[in-house]
Amino acid sequence: MLYYEDLSLESSFCSREYPLSAESIKAFAREYDPQPFHLDEAAAENTFFGGLVASGWHTSAIAMRLMAESVPIAGGLVGAGIDELRWFRPVRPGDSLHLESRVESMRVSASKPHQGIIKVKHTLLNQHNEPVEQFYSTMIIPRQQTSLSNPENAPL
Amino acid sequence: MLYYEDLSLESSFCSREYPLSAESIKAFAREYDPQPFHLDEAAAENTFFGGLVASGWHTSAIAMRLMAESVPIAGGLVGAGIDELRWFRPVRPGDSLHLESRVESMRVSASKPHQGIIKVKHTLLNQHNEPVEQFYSTMIIPRQQTSLSNPENAPL
Repeated sequence: MLYYEDLSLESSFCSREYPLSAESIKAFAREYDPQPFHLDEAAAENTFFGGLVASGWHTSAIAMRLMAESVPIAGGLVGAGIDELRWFRPVRPGDSLHLESRVESMRVSASKPHQGIIKVKHTLLNQHNEPVEQFYSTMIIPRQQTSLSNPENAPL
Repeated sequence: MLYYEDLSLESSFCSREYPLSAESIKAFAREYDPQPFHLDEAAAENTFFGGLVASGWHTSAIAMRLMAESVPIAGGLVGAGIDELRWFRPVRPGDSLHLESRVESMRVSASKPHQGIIKVKHTLLNQHNEPVEQFYSTMIIPRQQTSLSNPENAPL
């Protein structure tokens, strides 16, 4: 498990592949995004998307699942917020997704010096390596106890 | 169902209440965010959150569900992206959530004059009317056919 001191700018992580079925697209949509283009192949044909597509919140939830598996932060992934989330292209039944994550910035918390705050860029790609979604997450990450007891590592 | 011309700045929408159970929190987490503070009451006690909390992606999915019910845009809710998503406070079993949405900006698409582009601010609140999450969504919304055939309404 990784602490603040184990990361550096450009630290990167890559997930496994996550295959997506029509049934999984519809199951998420029935619960959280019940719109025709996410629920039913025939009804989806005459919509903006011209066929069944995954909810953008479904692909975001899949990105979270892959992040939980591939970014091993001590104490778990604790998010404060998301910025600049973009959906670039539709995700359809049979697509397979993977997540690439890279640390973009990092700092020690001014108010809580036992914590670091990192900003990570996440890109979700399909089986053709085309980006389907991208976002930045701001996460809280613990510092190593040894750093805290060493005055040289204390924040200014 | 609403078209671009039916909206104005400050158009607002309010959803029903959405009650959240421990079982629903855990079911989402098993599929999309399998971390101890979302999966199990006992395991959650010694974590950052000190008890079971809903995944932030679960509350986002609930916001989408409530939006689909309360913001009746013609052709469905088609999102291009999300900005400044913030999680303000934990959501716990037994909480009940509702969504308030307000149009913040709107313009006709330059490249596709039959479409408008609106930015909507969404705030998810708990039963004490405390905001638990907030974000801005950019959405594509069709213009009325009558506007398109009237040169006075054509975009510059």
